[in-house]
Amino acid sequence: MSAWLLPDHIADVLPSEARHIEELRRALLDAARVHGYELVMPPLLEHLDSLLTGTGEALDLQTFKLVDQLSGRTLGLRADTTAQVARIDAHLLNRSGLTRLCYCGPVLHTRPQRPLASREPLQFGAELYGHAGPEADLEVLELALACLRAAGLGRIVLDCGDVRIVDALLDGLNLPALRVQQLHAALAAKDVATLGQVAADLPTATQSALLALTELHGDAAVLEQAERVLPPSAALQRALADLRSLAQSLPLALAAAGSAHTCAANDIEINFDLADLRGYAYYTGLRFSIFAAALPGQMPQELVRGGRYDEVGAVFGRCRPAAGFSLDLKELVALLPRPAAQKAIRAPWGEDAALRQAIAALRAQGHVVLRVLPGHEHEVEEFDCDRALVPHAGAWVLQALPPSP
Amino acid sequence: MSAWLLPDHIADVLPSEARHIEELRRALLDAARVHGYELVMPPLLEHLDSLLTGTGEALDLQTFKLVDQLSGRTLGLRADTTAQVARIDAHLLNRSGLTRLCYCGPVLHTRPQRPLASREPLQFGAELYGHAGPEADLEVLELALACLRAAGLGRIVLDCGDVRIVDALLDGLNLPALRVQQLHAALAAKDVATLGQVAADLPTATQSALLALTELHGDAAVLEQAERVLPPSAALQRALADLRSLAQSLPLALAAAGSAHTCAANDIEINFDLADLRGYAYYTGLRFSIFAAALPGQMPQELVRGGRYDEVGAVFGRCRPAAGFSLDLKELVALLPRPAAQKAIRAPWGEDAALRQAIAALRAQGHVVLRVLPGHEHEVEEFDCDRALVPHAGAWVLQALPPSP
Repeated sequence: MSAWLLPDHIADVLPSEARHIEELRRALLDAARVHGYELVMPPLLEHLDSLLTGTGEALDLQTFKLVDQLSGRTLGLRADTTAQVARIDAHLLNRSGLTRLCYCGPVLHTRPQRPLASREPLQFGAELYGHAGPEADLEVLELALACLRAAGLGRIVLDCGDVRIVDALLDGLNLPALRVQQLHAALAAKDVATLGQVAADLPTATQSALLALTELHGDAAVLEQAERVLPPSAALQRALADLRSLAQSLPLALAAAGSAHTCAANDIEINFDLADLRGYAYYTGLRFSIFAAALPGQMPQELVRGGRYDEVGAVFGRCRPAAGFSLDLKELVALLPRPAAQKAIRAPWGEDAALRQAIAALRAQGHVVLRVLPGHEHEVEEFDCDRALVPHAGAWVLQALPPSP
Repeated sequence: MSAWLLPDHIADVLPSEARHIEELRRALLDAARVHGYELVMPPLLEHLDSLLTGTGEALDLQTFKLVDQLSGRTLGLRADTTAQVARIDAHLLNRSGLTRLCYCGPVLHTRPQRPLASREPLQFGAELYGHAGPEADLEVLELALACLRAAGLGRIVLDCGDVRIVDALLDGLNLPALRVQQLHAALAAKDVATLGQVAADLPTATQSALLALTELHGDAAVLEQAERVLPPSAALQRALADLRSLAQSLPLALAAAGSAHTCAANDIEINFDLADLRGYAYYTGLRFSIFAAALPGQMPQELVRGGRYDEVGAVFGRCRPAAGFSLDLKELVALLPRPAAQKAIRAPWGEDAALRQAIAALRAQGHVVLRVLPGHEHEVEEFDCDRALVPHAGAWVLQALPPSP
C-alpha cells in the first residue's frame, strides 16, 4: 500500500481549509472569552476508567485504547471532552462558586459517527458549573448561538427537549433499567407500535401519556398542549416552566446580540420535541440540538449538542450542576463559504538593509510578504500576490501587480 | 486508584496557562503567516508505516501504536509532525515551486524525552520545500527567531552545525553503517578516547581531522579554523561557506527585524559546533538548536530544533529539498512570565432589554462581561473584575470597582 494513503475517515486539512478553521477557532474562543469562559486544555490521553466512568457504553465503543509503557495500565484517547472538563472543575479548580470553562481540541473516534464523518473531529465546547437554575441553560444556549453567529452561520434551527418530562411520567413505577431503555429507544424513534408493546403492562394513564409524547413536537404551542394532555406533577410543571422561560427569553437575547453586531441577528426557528431522548445517558434536564437550516433537498445537519448534565462530575468526587454544549469545527467549516485566497506582497531576495527593513515593517503591520528565493522568480505562487516590493528612487516601494490569470 | 489521577507526564493545562499558550499559539501562527507559511493540519492518527518510514528507530520507540477497527491495520499516534508535512508537500499539494507550510498541534510520546518533559507536547513548526540553497536555511532560521521574538523571549543562544562536514571527512572510506554510527556517537559526545579507538584503523589524516572536529566549537572564528585544520574538499568548502554566509546574514536580518518592532532586537549569541550530530538520522545539511539563555546556575534549555532534511519526502515519492524547525509551545510558555489575571466587567442577571444590549455591546468590543446568575452575588470570581455595569439615570453605565483584596 502506498505510504501516502491515510486510514478511512481520517484526512489532512490543507491550507485554505486549515486557515478557515483557524479563523473560526479564534472567533469561537473569543466569543467564549468575552462571555467569561476560561480556556482549559485537558490531555488527549487518560486512564481509561477516568475517561469512561459514568458516560455510558456508546463512548466506550468510540474510544481507542492502548497500553501505557510507563505503568502497564490501559489508556484511552479521548472521544469526548465533557467528562475531562468536569474532572477539572471537580478536582483541580474546586471553586465554590460559578465556574465557566471552554475548550478546543481534537477528539478521536474508533468509528465515524455518521457515514461521511471524520474520525478526528475538532471539538469546541463550553461548560457552566455551579448553577442549577434555568439561567445557566439559557446562558450556554446564548453562547452557542453567539458562536454560530461569530462563525457567520445565519439560518439555524434549535430543537429543545427535557429528559425530566419522561422521567416525570415514569416516576414511581420502579421499572427495571432495561425496560426504561426500551421505552426511551421507542420514544426517540417515535416508534408508536413498539412503544405500545413495551408499555403494554403499564398503567393506562402512563401508556396514553407516552403515546401523547410522540406527538408533542413543534413550536412553543407544544408546551401548552403538554400541560393539558400529560398527567400533572410538580416535576413536569418545573420542566415545562423552564422550557417556557427559555422560549420567551431567547428571542430577547438574540435581539440584543443582533443590535450589538453589524451582522444580522440569527434567523432562528425554535422547535420543541418532548419525546426526543438522544444522548439520554448523559443529560439530566434540558437538552438541545442546533441544526444548520437545510438547503432544499438536504437533511438539516446537527451541528451543536448541549444541555444539562448535573451528574457528570460525580465520579470525581463533586456532583455539581452543569450545563454546556459542544460542536465539531470541521463540520461547521464545511457548511460555510470558503474565504478568498490570501493577499500577499512579493519581495525579492537580497541582503540590502533597506529591503530587509521594508519587509520587516510590512510584516509587522500584518501583511504577508513572500520572499522570492534565487531561481524561483518565475514560479506561480498559491497566494494572490497583488503587490510587489520594488526599488524606486533609492527606496523600496509597493507596486500593484496585474491580477494573475 | 482515584479517577482524577492522570498518567505520569500527562497533565491538564489550567486557565491562566491555557490562555497564555493560546496567545502564544496565535502569535507564532501569525508570525509564520506574514512570512508566507500556509497552515496545514495533518491527522493525529496514521498508518504506522507512513508515520515512521525513513525517520529512524528513535521515533518508532516514541510512537504509541493501536489497531484500526475499520481495517485491522496498525495505526500510530504521531510523535512528530515533520514527516506528515513532507507527505502533504509531496503528495497532496505536489506544487512545482517553493512551498511554505506551518503547523501547530499536539504530538504524543510513549516516554518523556527528558526527566520533566510532557508526553503530550504542543508542537509548532514550519517547513520550506523546494529550495536547496542556503537562502532557505536562513529564511527558516529567521522565522524561528521571529517566533521567539513574538513570544517575548529576548536572550537566546543559537547553536549551528552541519552534518555535511563529517560526511566530507569520511567520504570515500566506505565505512559500514554501524561504524559510522559509532563515530557519530563519539563525536556528538566529544568522547575523544572512544573516538580514537573507533577510528584507530582509519587513515591518519582522517583520524586527526575527526579529533580536531571535537575542538571546533565556539564563535564564527571556528569556521576559519576549520578551513585551516581540516583536509580540504569541495563538499567541506561548501558546508563552511554556507555556515559563514549564515553568520554574516543573520545579524543583519535581526537588526532589520528589530527596527520594525517596538520590542528590542533579540540578544543573540551565535555558536558553531562542527562535531554536533544530534538528530543525524534526519538532517542532511545545516542543523541548528536555539536555547533560552540560562539563568545563573541553570542549564540552558533547548527550545527549537531545525535544519535541512532533504530526503524526508522521498518515501512519499518526491525527494525535495526541505528546511524547517519545530518547538514545543508548552516548553516555551514555561520560560515566560505568566500574564496578569484577565480584567472583566461584572453585570447583573436580568431580562431588561437595555441591560442585554449594554452587555452585548461591551462583548462586541472585546470586553469580558460576567453575568452574575441569581444567588451567586457574593461569590469571588477568578477574574479581576475592575468594573461593574450598574443602572444610573435610566441607563446602564460602567462603574469602577475597588481592587479585590
